[in-house]
Amino acid sequence: MEDKVNLAEKLALFEEQWKPKIVGELNDYKIVVVKTEGEFVWHKHDDTDDFFLVLAGRLTIQMRGRDDVELGPGELFVVPRGVEHCPRADEEAHVLLIEPMETRNTGDAGGDLTAEPERI
Amino acid sequence: MEDKVNLAEKLALFEEQWKPKIVGELNDYKIVVVKTEGEFVWHKHDDTDDFFLVLAGRLTIQMRGRDDVELGPGELFVVPRGVEHCPRADEEAHVLLIEPMETRNTGDAGGDLTAEPERI
Repeated sequence: MEDKVNLAEKLALFEEQWKPKIVGELNDYKIVVVKTEGEFVWHKHDDTDDFFLVLAGRLTIQMRGRDDVELGPGELFVVPRGVEHCPRADEEAHVLLIEPMETRNTGDAGGDLTAEPERI
Repeated sequence: MEDKVNLAEKLALFEEQWKPKIVGELNDYKIVVVKTEGEFVWHKHDDTDDFFLVLAGRLTIQMRGRDDVELGPGELFVVPRGVEHCPRADEEAHVLLIEPMETRNTGDAGGDLTAEPERI
């Protein structure tokens, strides 16, 4: 049987930043945790909205042509599909993502920060 | 533009228990908060897994033929599709749910606890 997921315990299992880890599945979506610090890469997902829930720290979602959204613990935001965005964390933030299984973390941008999420 | 969602602020807007409130959308899924206390109703969803993330309090997921899963804050569990289950909270718990837009809270069971979620 699938066990419950304690998010803090999962986040304690790794230190790498911007390396998403799969902690569960919901239908054809992956449930992911990630540690972030600094600026990610500008990208968009044409086929899916992008869900962010901050668990610890603070995360700024920069979006092209829109005001930044600043998230603290217990705050979530969904970037609409097709909107170019770039997450930034001035200090380390821990974030829960829920996205279709095939979604690539760097969206259309690709590049060095592209990561194949590991199951933990 | 869609604003960020502060989950605690949303939960402060209502007091009713077992009445899911929609706080956002992710593709064709609804993002829902609910206050629970006592025992819900045994039911299942044949077409979708069922995602629970506890934000406050404690929630027990009873499942037919399986061990109970006890969730505290920051803990999540996904009930596989087709598994009959019945959430129970001995004291009030606040829970985040993410589920396909058309999912009925009482699944196949229906009855008095069936609720059409309101957008808050």
